[in-house]
This record gives sequence, structure tokens and C-alpha cells, in this order.
Amino acid sequence: MKAEIIAVGSELLTPDYLDTNSLFLTRGLREAGFEVHLKSVVGDSAEDMAAVIRSALSRSSVILTSGGLGPTEDDITRRVVAEVLERPLRLDPALVEAIRERFASRGYTMASINERQAEVIEGAEILENPRGTAPGQWIEARGVRLALLPGPPREIEPMFESAVMPRLRRLGAGRRLAERSFRVIGLTESEVDARVAPIYTAYQPRVSTTILAAAGHIALRSSQWVAQGEQARELEELAARIDQALGDAIYTTSDEPLEEIVGYLLAQSRRTVAVAESCTAGLLGWRITRVAGSSSYFLGGVLCYSNEVKTELCGVPRELLDQHGAVSAEVAEALARGVMRRFSSSIGLAVTGIAGPGGGTAEKPVGLVYVGIADSGQAVHFRRVLPGDREAVRERAVFFALAALRRFLLPPAP
Amino acid sequence: MKAEIIAVGSELLTPDYLDTNSLFLTRGLREAGFEVHLKSVVGDSAEDMAAVIRSALSRSSVILTSGGLGPTEDDITRRVVAEVLERPLRLDPALVEAIRERFASRGYTMASINERQAEVIEGAEILENPRGTAPGQWIEARGVRLALLPGPPREIEPMFESAVMPRLRRLGAGRRLAERSFRVIGLTESEVDARVAPIYTAYQPRVSTTILAAAGHIALRSSQWVAQGEQARELEELAARIDQALGDAIYTTSDEPLEEIVGYLLAQSRRTVAVAESCTAGLLGWRITRVAGSSSYFLGGVLCYSNEVKTELCGVPRELLDQHGAVSAEVAEALARGVMRRFSSSIGLAVTGIAGPGGGTAEKPVGLVYVGIADSGQAVHFRRVLPGDREAVRERAVFFALAALRRFLLPPAP
Repeated sequence: MKAEIIAVGSELLTPDYLDTNSLFLTRGLREAGFEVHLKSVVGDSAEDMAAVIRSALSRSSVILTSGGLGPTEDDITRRVVAEVLERPLRLDPALVEAIRERFASRGYTMASINERQAEVIEGAEILENPRGTAPGQWIEARGVRLALLPGPPREIEPMFESAVMPRLRRLGAGRRLAERSFRVIGLTESEVDARVAPIYTAYQPRVSTTILAAAGHIALRSSQWVAQGEQARELEELAARIDQALGDAIYTTSDEPLEEIVGYLLAQSRRTVAVAESCTAGLLGWRITRVAGSSSYFLGGVLCYSNEVKTELCGVPRELLDQHGAVSAEVAEALARGVMRRFSSSIGLAVTGIAGPGGGTAEKPVGLVYVGIADSGQAVHFRRVLPGDREAVRERAVFFALAALRRFLLPPAP
Repeated sequence: MKAEIIAVGSELLTPDYLDTNSLFLTRGLREAGFEVHLKSVVGDSAEDMAAVIRSALSRSSVILTSGGLGPTEDDITRRVVAEVLERPLRLDPALVEAIRERFASRGYTMASINERQAEVIEGAEILENPRGTAPGQWIEARGVRLALLPGPPREIEPMFESAVMPRLRRLGAGRRLAERSFRVIGLTESEVDARVAPIYTAYQPRVSTTILAAAGHIALRSSQWVAQGEQARELEELAARIDQALGDAIYTTSDEPLEEIVGYLLAQSRRTVAVAESCTAGLLGWRITRVAGSSSYFLGGVLCYSNEVKTELCGVPRELLDQHGAVSAEVAEALARGVMRRFSSSIGLAVTGIAGPGGGTAEKPVGLVYVGIADSGQAVHFRRVLPGDREAVRERAVFFALAALRRFLLPPAP
């Protein structure tokens, strides 16, 4: 049940790009019972690609390739796989038509090089690509299953889910990696480890656990391989103990993004929110509105990058800015109150901070962020000095603001 | 002058981790005249690692491994490389002592398993590790240079810089990769290829060119290896011809993000901008403010998610919204004018569109986006139907808006 992933593309061999597709491919393979034992990245060299595919055929039962299915000269995956498998490559007239129609529906004329994308390896099944012109291919050869998938994440993700996963699940025959995950906010990686290491080490090696510091949260993941019909009993027991040890520092056990949790809490309590963003300059509003349907609780916001805007649009008194500075608890609360009134929302959420690289002082260092939250009854603030460069501080500030809003929205403990 | 990178570690085969060391290793290798043509990730399997190293020895002149040099059972890099090279592994007593002292200086007693880290492949030079206990090794065998390096970024980075780069530079003898890059907006990948393929294919293989569709733009990169003192004459000639073929669809030739170009044009002409964002809900403001120092030309904005906000904060007449709908040329222009007045900026930039998944109609499909731009003299709009899901539409809408603003800011052609 060994799987291997081959990413194709010269850009993945530069200092600028990483193959990130392999992450969700790995997640899917594990769910279907396959363990990824090797990953490779090759460029547009037919010789290298052929060598890697030959080796893969000799040691893996599933091979997934991503990339190299485009219409240009350097898109060579189809041709190389056909050569290695010693099978002809044939132009599929129906596919040519489908690609031509796809172009036409967008008002473009198909360039003739795009025909190349309709070349199919003999015996391959076509995997439809609703998001692009390059179809995928599924091939069984020498006891190995190969899936040739496109490179762009927005094309490969839906194709993998809809066309490859069902095939993998059939092959996996019920073996699966049972997983439980926890996302924690408000504790450091070492604090999380100190609380849970005494617990999870007792379940090793049957259940393996990893702790990972991500932007704005700590991710904990425990997993156990189980055969069809088998229960992941140790995993469930461990998960219950972790749950108890971390309590409500866990904001989700389902990999749900924080903005969905917050959206759910807002919708459930029929409250609306408006944002005032200084240093984040829109990132908070963008994140809140990643949730489809967020327009029912998100009314809008103000990007109050300058002090004038803080005063004129968010009603922060000039004196408050002069006395405490734009990055202060007082201004964070005033911004929250001001944007709430301006938008007639139930809640105002404000972020003000020093993202850097310049602008820090000994008293107010780069990374200092205040979050203000107001509703009709009160205004509160939260302070944190966040690590990292300009972009990291801004991203973490958004997580910090959403985590604070989540706390604010949680019903009081009984 | 081909190089290959092998990352070792089971955690790099999970859905949570990527091998990021290869990025700076690649940068260094290119600087020293080596081209990375293959990257692999293997777990703690001796069989897989041996297979990959054997293949690498047959096709590359430099091999860098990272990871697997620790003291535990699953740290097998030293042993596997020794086996493949058929050279003995010998305990180096001086190294044992150095590791013991390192532990002692931190108040620890060295556990006996740590002795394993002092095992050296016959003929290898030791690469010191000031940040950890695992020393690296530099080996010449069968005409190939191998460097065994530790996995943790804080250990591998200084070791690579101080011990490996000087050796690579000597080997490279002044050879380097000359590069020219172009970023294009407003054309599809196939359109770009159709225009430039006849040109760049004529320079192959001496100059290699890749075309990559990124979110919102197409990236073109041409590169040519040159020896010490040599000029990249073909590359420069090709670049001039590409420049002519693509004209001002090229928005930068320096890998500069679009927001930097726009920032430069704004600062240069001493103009300021404010934004009105509907469907993008902050992403545009966030992107503009990624540029440090953007506060000199970015005044702020309004996230006008609801129609009320469009009217009350951005001064869009109610009748206009009723008559044309929020996603229309008229409203895009009115938003741009309104936000310009509200913020007293020289320019107003507005985005309104249907990001989906819901809300589309036959007449106004999901993906329809209008960008409005206003200054004191005029208001203009741009219309586009953008492909992709909710997030892709929003990201592309931001690029589309920035590209439109760039056009607006460009001095008229002479």
C-alpha cells in the first residue's frame, strides 16, 4: 500500500516555489489507506522524469503526478509516461471538442497547441477537469495505478477529490488512517506540549501525535492505522484525554478555519459585525468574508490607515489619539465603538498595531497589537506583542482578533 | 554541473510539513553555478534512501542531503550513504569528545546513543555544526560531491553558508545562472505562449524559458548559464524580443509584485489612493499595504459589503443601485468617486463583483467584476468575467484592479 508523489515543473526547482499539492494529496492517500513513502520534484527534463517514473513503478502501488499537462512545449508528462509504459499517445477527438468549447464559452478561440491536451495514453481513463483545459488520466499498468493530474492547485484539488479519491478508496479496501485533530489558540507550542506530552507518549507507537505551530494557532494531530471495520479505540481514548487537558483553548476539532467558527457563533446569536482595520488594512475583512454567506452577519468596515480616517469615519476623538497614540488600548476600544455605530452593527471589532518594519519604539515595539471589541453594553481590549516580519505580524493579528471575538461570543460557562 | 537535493525525514511525508530547506540550498547552488534538476523526499526507510542515492550518484555532480543525522534509530543517513559508497563508517574519537563537551557545557551528560553522531564515512571531511550536535560530512566519491547536512533549518543554514558554499564556489569556477523575468497581465497563458514561443524556442536549449500561470498574472522566466566573465548575450537578445512581443502587457521585468509597481507610480506622481471594496472585502487594501511605506500614498478604504454602506459611506445614490444593481459599471464609478471624496484622496479605486458561490444570474454570472477608477477629472470602469471559485475570483479581482490602476497611472505613450 505504498504511494509515491511526483511533482513536475521547472518552477518547482527554483528558489521561489514549493510543491504544496503533495500535502493534500498525502492527506487523501492516507485516508484511503495508502502511505506516502517518497516524493520527487522533477523539471521539464524527459530523461529525469522517465528515470523517476521507472523507479516509482518498481516500488510503489500508486503513483500520483502533478503538473506538466499544459499545452506548451515544456509540458511533457503525458508523453514521458506513455514512453515509459510503452503505450501510444492518441488524440481524442471528443476531448479536442470539449476543450474548444471551453475556450469558446469564455469568448476565446482555442489555439491549436491546446490540442495537445487532448492526447490520451492508450488504456487510460479520462479524469475531467471542470476548472481548466488539461484533463487528468488514470492508468493501470504493471500492477501499478498512475494518476496524471494538473499542477494548478485550483484544478488538481477538485479533480483529486471527485475522480481520484473514489478510485483510491476502492483500492484501499477499507484500510484507513484514523485521525483526530485539534487547533489551539492562546497557548505556545511548548505550553501545549507540556500539557499533552505525558498523555500522548503513552499511546506511541500505535497512535502517533504531532504538534505544529502554524500562523496564529497550534495544530495537534493524532493518527492511527486501522483495518476495515476496526475501531480506532486507542486514538479515541487519547483524543478524549487531550480534549480534557486543553479545554477551551481548543477552538476546533474539525480543521475548520477560525472564521467559520466565528461566523457560526455570530449567525447563531443573530448578531452582526463591522470592522475597523488599521495595520491589517483589510486582511481581517477578507478573512471573515471567506465564508460563503458571511454577508448575513458581516456589514463591512473601514480601513483606517491614517489618523484622520480614525477620527472622521470611526469617531475616535482627536485628543485620544494625541494622548495615547493610534496603537493603544483606548484607541482600539474607541475604534470598535465607532465602527459599530457607523455601521449600526451589533458588534464592532477593531485592530490597531505596529506591523513594521519601521515605527517601533522601546515602549511600543514592532509587533504590538491591540484588538478592541464593542457591543451595545461594553467595550473591551486585548493586547499582544506578536513575533515575525510585517506580513507575519499582520496575519497573526487577524488570528488574534478572530480568537478574541470567538471568546467574546462564546456563551458563558454554565 | 547538475545538482540534486535529498531531504530525509518521515515528518516530511505527512500532510503537515514541507521541505523548505531546499529553497535556500537551491539559491546557493545556482549562485555557485549548479542547476538543481531533481529533489526527493524520503522517510526513514534505508531501502528507499539507498535507491535514491544510487540514482543520484549516476546523474548528478553534486548531491546535498538534509536530515537523518540525529542520534536515534531512525537517523540512518550516515549508515546508508556509507553502504551505498561501500566505505566503512568509523567512530571518530575526537568528535565523540567534542560532542561530549558540547553536552557538558550545557550541563547535560551525553547519552551513549549520541556517539553515533561521531561516526564518519571513510574519506569524508567533517563540517562543523556550531548550532547542534550533528556534524555534517563532505565526501568525494566516483567523481561526485556529497554533502550530508542536518535537517533543522537553524543548523543547516549556517553550516551550508560557512562550509558548503565555499567548496561549491571553488567547484563552480565562476559559472552562474543569468536570469530575466517578465510578469504579464491581461493575457492568458496560451496567448502569451502563442506570442513568445516562436521566439524563445529559437534560443533553446542555450536559453531556457518557462511560462507559469500564477494567481492574476503570467510569469515568464528565461535563463542562461554563463561562464566566468562571459556575457549572457543570447539571453539579452531574447529578452529584448520578448519585451517587444508583449509590450505593455508586461507590468514588471524584476519580479516586483504589482502592488509595488503601483506604489511606485503613485509615489512618483505624488498621488494618493483610497479604496472601496465590495466583493474583495479588504483583500485589495491588504495587498496595497504589503509594501512597507505604503502609508505615504494609501489613505484607507471602505469595505462596502452592503448596499446601505455603499450609499451612506461612499455616496452612491440609492437610485443608481436600484436601477443598475450593485455590480455594474455605474456603481463601480460612483464608488470610486465617492471614496475619493470621502478620503480626500487624489484617486478612488473601487471593486464590485459577484464572487459566488451564489448570487449569479444569466446576465450577471459568478465571476463578473467591475473596477472603477476616479480622479478629479474623470471616472472610468473596467469589466471582466473572472474564472474560478470564490477565493480565486476575489484574488483575481484584486490583480485586475491593480492592473487597471497601473494602466491609469502610466504616463501616456509619447
